[in-house]
Amino acid sequence: MSENNVNAYLLLTCPDQNGIVAKITQFIYHSGGNIIALDEHVNQNQEFFSFRVVWNMKNSTIPASELHAAFEPLAKEFKAHWRIEFSGQKQRVAIFVSKYDHCLQEILWRYNMNEYEIEIPLIISNHPDLQHIANAQNIPYHVFPITKENKQEQEAKEIALLKEHDIDLVILARYMQVLSPGFIEAYRNKIINIHHSFLPGFVGGNPYKQAYERGVKMIGATSHFVTEDLDEGPIIEQDIMRITHKDTIPDLIRKGRDLERIVLARALSYKAEHRIIVDGTRTIVFG
Amino acid sequence: MSENNVNAYLLLTCPDQNGIVAKITQFIYHSGGNIIALDEHVNQNQEFFSFRVVWNMKNSTIPASELHAAFEPLAKEFKAHWRIEFSGQKQRVAIFVSKYDHCLQEILWRYNMNEYEIEIPLIISNHPDLQHIANAQNIPYHVFPITKENKQEQEAKEIALLKEHDIDLVILARYMQVLSPGFIEAYRNKIINIHHSFLPGFVGGNPYKQAYERGVKMIGATSHFVTEDLDEGPIIEQDIMRITHKDTIPDLIRKGRDLERIVLARALSYKAEHRIIVDGTRTIVFG
Amino acid sequence: MSENNVNAYLLLTCPDQNGIVAKITQFIYHSGGNIIALDEHVNQNQEFFSFRVVWNMKNSTIPASELHAAFEPLAKEFKAHWRIEFSGQKQRVAIFVSKYDHCLQEILWRYNMNEYEIEIPLIISNHPDLQHIANAQNIPYHVFPITKENKQEQEAKEIALLKEHDIDLVILARYMQVLSPGFIEAYRNKIINIHHSFLPGFVGGNPYKQAYERGVKMIGATSHFVTEDLDEGPIIEQDIMRITHKDTIPDLIRKGRDLERIVLARALSYKAEHRIIVDGTRTIVFG
Amino acid sequence: MSENNVNAYLLLTCPDQNGIVAKITQFIYHSGGNIIALDEHVNQNQEFFSFRVVWNMKNSTIPASELHAAFEPLAKEFKAHWRIEFSGQKQRVAIFVSKYDHCLQEILWRYNMNEYEIEIPLIISNHPDLQHIANAQNIPYHVFPITKENKQEQEAKEIALLKEHDIDLVILARYMQVLSPGFIEAYRNKIINIHHSFLPGFVGGNPYKQAYERGVKMIGATSHFVTEDLDEGPIIEQDIMRITHKDTIPDLIRKGRDLERIVLARALSYKAEHRIIVDGTRTIVFG
Repeated sequence: MSENNVNAYLLLTCPDQNGIVAKITQFIYHSGGNIIALDEHVNQNQEFFSFRVVWNMKNSTIPASELHAAFEPLAKEFKAHWRIEFSGQKQRVAIFVSKYDHCLQEILWRYNMNEYEIEIPLIISNHPDLQHIANAQNIPYHVFPITKENKQEQEAKEIALLKEHDIDLVILARYMQVLSPGFIEAYRNKIINIHHSFLPGFVGGNPYKQAYERGVKMIGATSHFVTEDLDEGPIIEQDIMRITHKDTIPDLIRKGRDLERIVLARALSYKAEHRIIVDGTRTIVFG
Repeated sequence: MSENNVNAYLLLTCPDQNGIVAKITQFIYHSGGNIIALDEHVNQNQEFFSFRVVWNMKNSTIPASELHAAFEPLAKEFKAHWRIEFSGQKQRVAIFVSKYDHCLQEILWRYNMNEYEIEIPLIISNHPDLQHIANAQNIPYHVFPITKENKQEQEAKEIALLKEHDIDLVILARYMQVLSPGFIEAYRNKIINIHHSFLPGFVGGNPYKQAYERGVKMIGATSHFVTEDLDEGPIIEQDIMRITHKDTIPDLIRKGRDLERIVLARALSYKAEHRIIVDGTRTIVFG
Repeated sequence: MSENNVNAYLLLTCPDQNGIVAKITQFIYHSGGNIIALDEHVNQNQEFFSFRVVWNMKNSTIPASELHAAFEPLAKEFKAHWRIEFSGQKQRVAIFVSKYDHCLQEILWRYNMNEYEIEIPLIISNHPDLQHIANAQNIPYHVFPITKENKQEQEAKEIALLKEHDIDLVILARYMQVLSPGFIEAYRNKIINIHHSFLPGFVGGNPYKQAYERGVKMIGATSHFVTEDLDEGPIIEQDIMRITHKDTIPDLIRKGRDLERIVLARALSYKAEHRIIVDGTRTIVFG
Repeated sequence: MSENNVNAYLLLTCPDQNGIVAKITQFIYHSGGNIIALDEHVNQNQEFFSFRVVWNMKNSTIPASELHAAFEPLAKEFKAHWRIEFSGQKQRVAIFVSKYDHCLQEILWRYNMNEYEIEIPLIISNHPDLQHIANAQNIPYHVFPITKENKQEQEAKEIALLKEHDIDLVILARYMQVLSPGFIEAYRNKIINIHHSFLPGFVGGNPYKQAYERGVKMIGATSHFVTEDLDEGPIIEQDIMRITHKDTIPDLIRKGRDLERIVLARALSYKAEHRIIVDGTRTIVFG
């Protein structure tokens, strides 16, 4: 069945208990699935079980369209949170930007190289500055200028647009606005930000100036899911770069751009490959 | 059953086929085992399946002493190579040294910190120089001077000593002698070497001199299993260090020591934690 | 004198001897220059002296146009090879490409961000594939298809074009042709290549396939000046990325692209900032 | 003059002004010194000049014993803070420990390898636990138990002991006591601490627990000079290690030990090589 020649991705979390892996892999085996990858994690206090398994459905006796229903009884038995994704079903990603283009350019370049199994149907900004980049890629670019007065209203329009385009994931690619709690709630664990600092090192603004004045020997960047606690959401990826006394604040900003690009690009790839499970304040990123 | 309050480690390789994971995890589940970690890998050409699973046996209905026999039928069905190890059963490690002490010291320090679940019943050397270090740790130190003439004979004595002490693993901690094929055959995939170079960069002697003259900007070290092809055995771990034009050959040697220590120490930890499976010229090191 | 409000860069090498630094800094001091940065290096066998000094000419009594003549007697005394560059005098760079765009894109993005003090008056390729990227940046794109028969002739045209445009530096951004000795001679130490491997690890073609088969735990990339000995020119910059058994050859190619981009971009920045001196088979890259 | 066959290290800071380098190198040249290394730095706001120069005195017409007096007039002209050190004059280092031995062991191993040009005449501790390590090295080990009541008194004894042994540098190798301001004042910029965290990330206690709970993807360590502001002294060196969700708090502690060892060892080497100048809240570590 050529329609089934796809891979299924199951991501599941539940209270830890015996037999979960045996029962799930049995289910896959009996359906004719061939496991390609699997990984599991039990957290430190032995209560929270996380599981990711990928299998090929070429010989599956269960069509993709019926897999969700077929698996549901098992999931109920485990009291699990879970979802099944399929290869070929591209995640629909909206990118939010302001005036800096480096993270946007990096993502678009990888998108064009087909590094991600995603679709980018639109770019949203509070400024018109990066319109030309979107144009060059033939991606619609929507400008919603934000003021204190119109924020709720503009965000409502943005959310409507996201819904209309069936957006699965929002990437804040150096988007310089704080999202309202309502927006965050609507896309819980589906908004990824890049913080231009090695959290929790320099929370807040001007981290490169802080880094210079504190005389640190490394700067970093952090990508995380957005929560109501600014800069406190579950961390997905971090990296650092070595600096010296010779680096001025402009040097740090320039080096920081490189970090921001690479860290956000990696976080997006983990998400695109269905590798991430959120466990409270932490993420599990399966390798 | 307190005797069973241990973890079992199954490492298994076999031709790839459907249902392996399901059947093994079913076996564990039915025996009352609670899976702590599992990981699998299918190689690029989809033929070679590798599997590692760890489970707690506290509530196991099969005693540790009977586990091997109980699992054997399933292993036969898969035509598998496999072994089961238990926590608490310390691997018995012999360390071979010559005159450099840095790798030996590093391993002994971690050994004393209980970082490894191993026992070191003896140290073997072709020189008496490091006797005092062994003495300070109360580890017997055996000297077997090697000449072209006596090599076979001395190695035979070494192997006899290893057998007598039930040695599971040989660590060449900057041991400056090439082992004979017979020795290697007797401890296939059980001899770990540290090569003071980033393989395959500078094969052979004096890699730091080669690195200096070639003007490379990084030096490295490589830990690998020993095979008959010198410096060509399956690589377990590698790391590098950034250098500049300012580094003289003595600087490279000094920096190289740090690399050698850390890379060999990591390779040993992977082995001690039963994380490594050899697949031809490559290793699988489960994370 | 506003014309003089520039920085001068002196790069000088000569046989090692006493008093060089004193005499040069005295020269700068007496001319009214204010030293911003200086660095020196004497090689391991104490024979080859390298020096880089940067000074501001705001209060210089010697105009930039006369600096070369003013310094010449001192340089002769030292039997030095030397050159003086000025800030604001952008190096003129030609980029050579074939079909891969990642290195080109990376350089153009940084060029647009003004990270380099360079001018890119033209892009040369043996294929028409990347024309659209050049067009988007309004940079002339010249195609010279190369066959065994027409190579000399085409290279002669390329060199003529480079001369016509006063090119100071050639960047081979994954240009898949070997340059003839005559070309190399014409731009000695002025052609920078990116080698998609951690030299001297996997010399030659298909390094990622070699890396996979050898089971290395890290891949790398190397940027070097081009000499007649393929892959043996003085190394400017290298970096590595950690890999595992899970990485297939396509994964390595993808990760390798990231390395190639970053390593070539760094090498270009060192050159653009007049930081590199070549000492035989090695480079000195002043920090 | 064989007594003069040593290297002199000049470290100097002063308000930035023209001609400093010229005059100092002239001084060295006229004295018959041969410059081996020099480096300078002007801070971002162009006010604070730092300089390090190393020269060989084999042919010096000024004996080492008279060099200080000979240079003084120039230093006064620049209103400089400065000092001159000589190779062969080993810095005298006291190591402070509590119960953890890893940093102490690391330093002693490198000390025995002659990596540092230092002398360690004594180890001071508030606990008797590591006495045996000192004994094995024949280094006197002094125990000063600290309580809230006796702290001033015990520190006074420690300082007396340091003075008696002409100690130049104090290394806090995981010494678990906060030093009083008086102690710090007595050894301003001469006390190096290792902070088991990537500052300013997790200030204060239990950083590994904090790191686990915050779900960071990297842990770090920081070595800094001790000031009255706990954890806020000028940073000398930092490094990080990548971690994952699999790492438990004990794993982080174990990995953190490796970081602490290496970061403190590097900071000590920079100090031993007279590479560090303190500029307010920052350090300049010459390469």
